[in-house]
Amino acid sequence: MEAQQPNQHIQPAPAELAPTERTRHRRLREQGSALVSDLDGILRDGFVCHLGVTVDGTPMVVPTVYGVDFDRRTLYLHGSVASRSLVRAPRATVCVTVTHIDGLVLARSVFEHGVNYRSAMIYAVPRQVTEEDELLHGLRILTEHCAPGQWDYARRPSAKELAATSLLALPLDEASVKTASGPPQDADGPDGRLGLWAGVVPVHTRLGAPESDPALPEGIAVPDHVTAWGTGRAG
Amino acid sequence: MEAQQPNQHIQPAPAELAPTERTRHRRLREQGSALVSDLDGILRDGFVCHLGVTVDGTPMVVPTVYGVDFDRRTLYLHGSVASRSLVRAPRATVCVTVTHIDGLVLARSVFEHGVNYRSAMIYAVPRQVTEEDELLHGLRILTEHCAPGQWDYARRPSAKELAATSLLALPLDEASVKTASGPPQDADGPDGRLGLWAGVVPVHTRLGAPESDPALPEGIAVPDHVTAWGTGRAG
Repeated sequence: MEAQQPNQHIQPAPAELAPTERTRHRRLREQGSALVSDLDGILRDGFVCHLGVTVDGTPMVVPTVYGVDFDRRTLYLHGSVASRSLVRAPRATVCVTVTHIDGLVLARSVFEHGVNYRSAMIYAVPRQVTEEDELLHGLRILTEHCAPGQWDYARRPSAKELAATSLLALPLDEASVKTASGPPQDADGPDGRLGLWAGVVPVHTRLGAPESDPALPEGIAVPDHVTAWGTGRAG
Repeated sequence: MEAQQPNQHIQPAPAELAPTERTRHRRLREQGSALVSDLDGILRDGFVCHLGVTVDGTPMVVPTVYGVDFDRRTLYLHGSVASRSLVRAPRATVCVTVTHIDGLVLARSVFEHGVNYRSAMIYAVPRQVTEEDELLHGLRILTEHCAPGQWDYARRPSAKELAATSLLALPLDEASVKTASGPPQDADGPDGRLGLWAGVVPVHTRLGAPESDPALPEGIAVPDHVTAWGTGRAG
């Protein structure tokens, strides 16, 4: 049997079920991903995360900027926002969530309405960065992630400013990625015959034209690297 | 002394210190607010929050849509995202954070870089909505908050769909509002004489043109209420 079984040239079964007609749309619309490239794409496309910490047993969710050293698989963020919880529970796990809203999904039924999004949740025990070289490195990563070109353009942190800076490093080892995309899923059922419009209203986040500080002396132009953000860079 | 004291016509001291030249900029740029109108404005301008729950002592931050009944001071959101934590700790406080990123603040120094934002954090013990009238009411509030006009346009939930819907109600009693706005603050100090450009790069979130479901039969136009979102409505 073994040598002659007709299935011997069939490829190994994939780790996921092949979608059927019934499951296809939902699978396409909302799914998890274990791909590092998907995680990195979501992190690259944003600069604000929502940091979740536990303070006296109660969750606290705070928006804050972040930067990623993709080579060292490390996310950096300012420690001041989480200082209270970190002092009380220095070895506690935090959750960092980065979300992009891509569209409102308008189905024929209220029940099938939804949102197209890309979201990454990272769980990690944050490490307080204390060594000056890594502090400078992390601040450069953070600055260049949020405002590329500004590390070389603006005045870098002084020793006094470095001493006043709290920076956290989080390994990107444990993450959950979820995305939803595509049109609504109720075209095939009875709702598809209601004669109602259905589709997606995209949500776009874009950078606008730079607005100079009113206190700026005349004759100082917007630097080229900042002007360049306006073309194509998402917020 | 009492009747003749020279200060008798002076107004009561305000609850906040009057800003001095030294504190003015920072106070203008980043501040808390206790105004209900500020909280409501932030909630009106968005439809996605980050819900923080505690699962086995660890914070979990999940993006989800919300709607607000401003008259009853109640926020509604889908319960499915928090189901695991709610089953284990039904009386636990959750944190709901709504954030709008308005701009990147580019200062003369890296240290003074920041983000203009508006953010509301709401703490509440969620109540599972079980009564059918409130379930319908809450779903209408949620739908109309995210997609105004769709409650009347799309097919409303069936009894079976209602039974499959988990909805949470949160009172808007305990909230913290923080905002940052305005230009960078380092024009007046020595960094103001570095000759560097400084200012704000605005971040805009807008709805794009509706994209019809490819499975839509021909001849079904985008309804007027959806077309109207494109003009002025933020995402």
